[in-house]
Amino acid sequence: MNDDFLMLALDTSQTQGSVAVARGEKVLCEILFDASDTHSATLMPAVDICMRTAGAVTDDLDAFAVVTGPGSFTGLRIGLATVKAFAAVRRRPVFSASSLEVLASAFPFAGPPVLPLLDARRGEVYAALYDVSSGSPVELEGPRDVKPGDTGRLVDSRSAGGAVILCGSGAARYRDILSASLGERCLFAGSAWSLPSAALLAMLVRGRRPVAYVDLAGLEPLYIRPPDAKIPAGMKLREGGGGG
Amino acid sequence: MNDDFLMLALDTSQTQGSVAVARGEKVLCEILFDASDTHSATLMPAVDICMRTAGAVTDDLDAFAVVTGPGSFTGLRIGLATVKAFAAVRRRPVFSASSLEVLASAFPFAGPPVLPLLDARRGEVYAALYDVSSGSPVELEGPRDVKPGDTGRLVDSRSAGGAVILCGSGAARYRDILSASLGERCLFAGSAWSLPSAALLAMLVRGRRPVAYVDLAGLEPLYIRPPDAKIPAGMKLREGGGGG
Repeated sequence: MNDDFLMLALDTSQTQGSVAVARGEKVLCEILFDASDTHSATLMPAVDICMRTAGAVTDDLDAFAVVTGPGSFTGLRIGLATVKAFAAVRRRPVFSASSLEVLASAFPFAGPPVLPLLDARRGEVYAALYDVSSGSPVELEGPRDVKPGDTGRLVDSRSAGGAVILCGSGAARYRDILSASLGERCLFAGSAWSLPSAALLAMLVRGRRPVAYVDLAGLEPLYIRPPDAKIPAGMKLREGGGGG
Repeated sequence: MNDDFLMLALDTSQTQGSVAVARGEKVLCEILFDASDTHSATLMPAVDICMRTAGAVTDDLDAFAVVTGPGSFTGLRIGLATVKAFAAVRRRPVFSASSLEVLASAFPFAGPPVLPLLDARRGEVYAALYDVSSGSPVELEGPRDVKPGDTGRLVDSRSAGGAVILCGSGAARYRDILSASLGERCLFAGSAWSLPSAALLAMLVRGRRPVAYVDLAGLEPLYIRPPDAKIPAGMKLREGGGGG
């Protein structure tokens, strides 16, 4: 990607959303906002504020970035749909990363591995494990849904007995269970390290291979688990499908 | 401080500004914006956007946080004046931290010490050294102005030969000189870790002792070095003074 490309990045995987505009390595604007009502009402106003604050217009955008998941099913759909629409109209590529990887990228050069945990409801968390000691996240264990009490096993497979950094909405919600499962090895990061960050997303995807605008149909949400909402009997979607 | 206090936090120490609104540990909104023209034109619109996005009004605010410096002399004055005005009207306390400490707080649990460097112009940088291995910054060497080529000595006094994490506008501007001075020990953080963050400021000051609103006159900018602008001969200010 050209170093001066202007990128719009969105993270709609959580109940708070984040939008950023970056030119090359420079983040021009980032905004964090509450989307607990619905991302469909809050995302576009946030994009608008961010673009205006960055002094940019849609016609200037050279690339897009989006979080594919895991996280809020509806949030992910809205983020992907928005980015696909922008990219299709502008005929520009889309970069993507997982929500858990973006959370892990907030700990450059940390010694212990990072275990980002997102609340997946139904008593589960989405979890993955990353080594960040080199400055950027290297995946040790890929995204999955687990019971909070089973995270000890996930970590032990890679770091028997060593400290582990916990962050994300799942770490806050299941703090007691996680402490019991992982013991004294738990290093709970502050609440600021549970926030989505489109600026970190924009930096994380630099140098990666994007999806070209002609191939956007192949860019799918990373749900991990089937959506809670089911298609009523008698209705059919042609492929994939499912709300949530 | 009460856990549910609503806080407005500002960082105006750099050419980009940051404003955040947080309730207790929860960051409700944060916005990063360009202030290279002047913070006096960009700060209040950013505060307004942030407050509206957070669904808060001035009358709700229970506390304030501000970066005292080092950094842009004018930016610091504007940030302090704004926060003092809010705090005086609301009769609420003001928390503060140094710009370098806020930058260091972005590396929780990093193994090597963090050397945040802000461009101080005149071929100098503002620098300090922090141990962040426990999760929050512990000052090893306090803020000072140094030549980029002299940072090696600053680091050696605390971490002879070990790796050191560099971030901030000074790290980007003097990358070559710093590499020559510090050698292979340099771990340059990505550009996202040079940004001001009022959300990190708000989290950093939690649990600290604020300045009460009746003592606001004592809350002064941390300039480190005298301002570049001098009072013309024949003019006098009653005390302190100096633009920049």
